[in-house]
Amino acid sequence: MTLGKVVGTVWATRKDEQLIGMKLQIVQQVDLDLTLKDSFVVAVDSVGAGVGEIVLYATGSSARQTELTRNKPVDAVITAIVDKLDVPGTPALTEAVEA
Amino acid sequence: MTLGKVVGTVWATRKDEQLIGMKLQIVQQVDLDLTLKDSFVVAVDSVGAGVGEIVLYATGSSARQTELTRNKPVDAVITAIVDKLDVPGTPALTEAVEA
Amino acid sequence: MTLGKVVGTVWATRKDEQLIGMKLQIVQQVDLDLTLKDSFVVAVDSVGAGVGEIVLYATGSSARQTELTRNKPVDAVITAIVDKLDVPGTPALTEAVEA
Amino acid sequence: MTLGKVVGTVWATRKDEQLIGMKLQIVQQVDLDLTLKDSFVVAVDSVGAGVGEIVLYATGSSARQTELTRNKPVDAVITAIVDKLDVPGTPALTEAVEA
Amino acid sequence: MTLGKVVGTVWATRKDEQLIGMKLQIVQQVDLDLTLKDSFVVAVDSVGAGVGEIVLYATGSSARQTELTRNKPVDAVITAIVDKLDVPGTPALTEAVEA
Repeated sequence: MTLGKVVGTVWATRKDEQLIGMKLQIVQQVDLDLTLKDSFVVAVDSVGAGVGEIVLYATGSSARQTELTRNKPVDAVITAIVDKLDVPGTPALTEAVEA
Repeated sequence: MTLGKVVGTVWATRKDEQLIGMKLQIVQQVDLDLTLKDSFVVAVDSVGAGVGEIVLYATGSSARQTELTRNKPVDAVITAIVDKLDVPGTPALTEAVEA
Repeated sequence: MTLGKVVGTVWATRKDEQLIGMKLQIVQQVDLDLTLKDSFVVAVDSVGAGVGEIVLYATGSSARQTELTRNKPVDAVITAIVDKLDVPGTPALTEAVEA
Repeated sequence: MTLGKVVGTVWATRKDEQLIGMKLQIVQQVDLDLTLKDSFVVAVDSVGAGVGEIVLYATGSSARQTELTRNKPVDAVITAIVDKLDVPGTPALTEAVEA
Repeated sequence: MTLGKVVGTVWATRKDEQLIGMKLQIVQQVDLDLTLKDSFVVAVDSVGAGVGEIVLYATGSSARQTELTRNKPVDAVITAIVDKLDVPGTPALTEAVEA
């Protein structure tokens, strides 16, 4: 899975009917110190993640293994909201998510 | 999914017969401020997107989960035409698509 | 799909038996103005593309959705020979393939 | 598979229920001389790898082929703990993992 | 498929039981002139490739389409040992593999 931060939402009325009702979140990749990277994806949200939250997302066919996305044309899905990164030897990161 | 802009069309008469009748759009990746990136894909269009429109496309096996592309040798499909990006704290982006 | 140019052929006698009889073409990625990029793949040819031709190829599991490659250990397949790129506003590209 | 080093753990209480009970390890890619690269993934651990260990991980749909991850929304899984790299002509690497 | 050179072997005793008995080769990507690139994968060998040989490998779900790797958590497999690259207009490459 990839670590990212929800930074916004995509609105689209004309879309494949299998996407109707799905929230499409813009998730920007972050580094281990939570700084934003350049790359981002648009992911379906299966866990109710809000803007500003640090999340994990899965890509590829694995993104279709949630109840919400099964057999849908979805290649990225948010699967977890991160509470904490525990990186021994780098205490600054350990509580970074809550900071 | 990936955010992109339709910039053109590919014409090909000699092709796998499973591609016959499919519109092959050139979709260039865009950044959150809609500036064009260098990379692009050729995607099957399942939603009637025209040149100049901002779209979402899915790649990999997920690109075969639309009615049009099921079981076809297609690894990229346009699944939505974007109306609006809502990126809190960055008002300029929010209406960028319509601008 | 990805836009590329066939630049050569790979010869291999010791190979997985499922690859026997398949033509393995070296396809270098090209930009929209058809300049060669650095990256290339070795793709099975399902449409009879010759060296010098501009083609589309599919990758990943989608590369196994042609009659020739189904269930084979093949992750790239040429699916179309490009006649023309139609990129409005950039006339030079429109006939580039034939040039 | 990709060579990496386990550098930490992700804690997440709000997550897809299929991820409950899975250990989510942060695995940073390493070079052949075991220096850390910039990129990292969050991988499910199927072999009991601890922080500091050099591991192999599989990505994509192959990450769902372990008993632990089958049919789960998991796109990266640790499948082996590396004992030794044997790189002829580069003796320094051969015992690097134990060093 | 990707062109690479076998540069070494990974030894791992603690691993997913489905990997038992598989030879794990380190394959470094090469350019068309066979110079080594920075990136490498660890691939299961299905064709008996030795260190120093130029090979093709398949990745992703296609890596599970050999008899050896079917349904296994394997995302890269060597499928051919390259005899010759035939790149018209670049004679130096044509016999490079044997050189």
